[in-house]
Amino acid sequence: MVQAKVFFKCENFQKMGAFKMRGAANAILSLSSDEQAKGVVTHSSGNFAQALALAAKKIGVKAYIVMPKNAPQVKKNAVKTYEGEIIECDSNPIAREEMAVKVQKETGAKFIHPSNDDAVIYGQGTAAMELLENYPDLDYIFSPVGGGGLIAGTALAAHYFSKYCKVIGGEPINADDAYRSLLSGKIELNDSTDTIADGLRTNLGDRNFPIIKKYVEKIMRVEEEEIIAAMKLIWERMKIIIEPSSAVAFAALLKNKSDYKNKNIGIIISGGNVDIANLPF
Amino acid sequence: MVQAKVFFKCENFQKMGAFKMRGAANAILSLSSDEQAKGVVTHSSGNFAQALALAAKKIGVKAYIVMPKNAPQVKKNAVKTYEGEIIECDSNPIAREEMAVKVQKETGAKFIHPSNDDAVIYGQGTAAMELLENYPDLDYIFSPVGGGGLIAGTALAAHYFSKYCKVIGGEPINADDAYRSLLSGKIELNDSTDTIADGLRTNLGDRNFPIIKKYVEKIMRVEEEEIIAAMKLIWERMKIIIEPSSAVAFAALLKNKSDYKNKNIGIIISGGNVDIANLPF
Repeated sequence: MVQAKVFFKCENFQKMGAFKMRGAANAILSLSSDEQAKGVVTHSSGNFAQALALAAKKIGVKAYIVMPKNAPQVKKNAVKTYEGEIIECDSNPIAREEMAVKVQKETGAKFIHPSNDDAVIYGQGTAAMELLENYPDLDYIFSPVGGGGLIAGTALAAHYFSKYCKVIGGEPINADDAYRSLLSGKIELNDSTDTIADGLRTNLGDRNFPIIKKYVEKIMRVEEEEIIAAMKLIWERMKIIIEPSSAVAFAALLKNKSDYKNKNIGIIISGGNVDIANLPF
Repeated sequence: MVQAKVFFKCENFQKMGAFKMRGAANAILSLSSDEQAKGVVTHSSGNFAQALALAAKKIGVKAYIVMPKNAPQVKKNAVKTYEGEIIECDSNPIAREEMAVKVQKETGAKFIHPSNDDAVIYGQGTAAMELLENYPDLDYIFSPVGGGGLIAGTALAAHYFSKYCKVIGGEPINADDAYRSLLSGKIELNDSTDTIADGLRTNLGDRNFPIIKKYVEKIMRVEEEEIIAAMKLIWERMKIIIEPSSAVAFAALLKNKSDYKNKNIGIIISGGNVDIANLPF
């Protein structure tokens, strides 16, 4: 179909269903035992909340998860299953940052940002590292771009563990902050984030953007219908369940396949947490 | 969840999305070169049509597929993609058998039954054989029961390649011909086949039933809602796409889990061909 060899790194099969487990585990394991004893805190209503809670549980560390009051009950339940302590806040970015600071002050817990944290970035990079261990001849790795942690880690892994592998980002046109940030040279924000790829609505941060600027070859944008078509193709032909955000990198390859003929290409399938009762097809 | 170790043989990842590829390939490869030169013929509106067409194409043999006129266009297209020659017939069992005989007479092609054929049965058994190669300590293998080819092959594999592994069938209560056949000692038919597990509506045959009678430990029946719940669980937790028929064996284990505590259990996930635009959840 692409006239290239394509290898998929299936992070949908990762613990809690997404690559986020890697960064969360690495961030907690990078703390001193004194720091670990005080616990960790993050603000997230998505996969990172579950990842940090599960990683903390496995390592034996307390996790405080700041979540907006109106977060879906299913996501709150998942965090509770992993024994994370939920602290509710109002549903806006300032309220959740303030609440995270408050928890830090009261408990001494270490704040871990879902994507703008060095240890998180390095952890996310282990997906590409493993892919390159299995397929050292990859010419390109395609990764989705959301908050920037995954693609920054992927770019570092390609830089340090491969001689020539280049990293390309896939991003929804409807939330193309990273594409515009690479053009302007500074972190751009999204005016709107009307995309089915709900994991890719966040903005880049000051820790991951410099890495992305230095090591990512380019970012390619895709339309909503291209994301849905790529997702459906993977479901139907590969028989695996991936979330819309995961389809974005593959959609970018499909859209530009003529440029990648006969190449060896890795695709990071970032996760598989999707509401199967509410599908776009 | 089951308090047992459970290993899944994922035939949804098989070529054309189901275990049927194994039996089709083995049946064609078991023919003499003279027989192969004349081609093969089957009647099927389901996975076996695609499997025989694809296996024939790969081996370089002509495949004639007798399909009812009203078979879904998507299934006809799949057979055409694999270069099978479709011969249409009226939509009833007698018409399709007569048409298959007619094709045999006119072309000299060898008839290969989807489930009641020794070479097909042995081919289907290679799934369990591979599972036992990887996990020699399995106490049980659960397989769905449809036309009987898969479970008969599975039972032979367990008998010949394991010292103590027993084979258990899962069957929809709404199409429990195999369950009743084991009780009565002769092949029973289904009065109705009102089950979502569309691959399991067929009856046993005179080649596979004696094997099932001799080597299958027992057949356990499940309700429609148990099939759907097991299917949903696998989709959501394992992030793989399986068809309803595949969920029946796992549903049988879930229903009777207290009997299988601390055992090593293999489950044959028979296929993943499902219309994702038309799901039961």
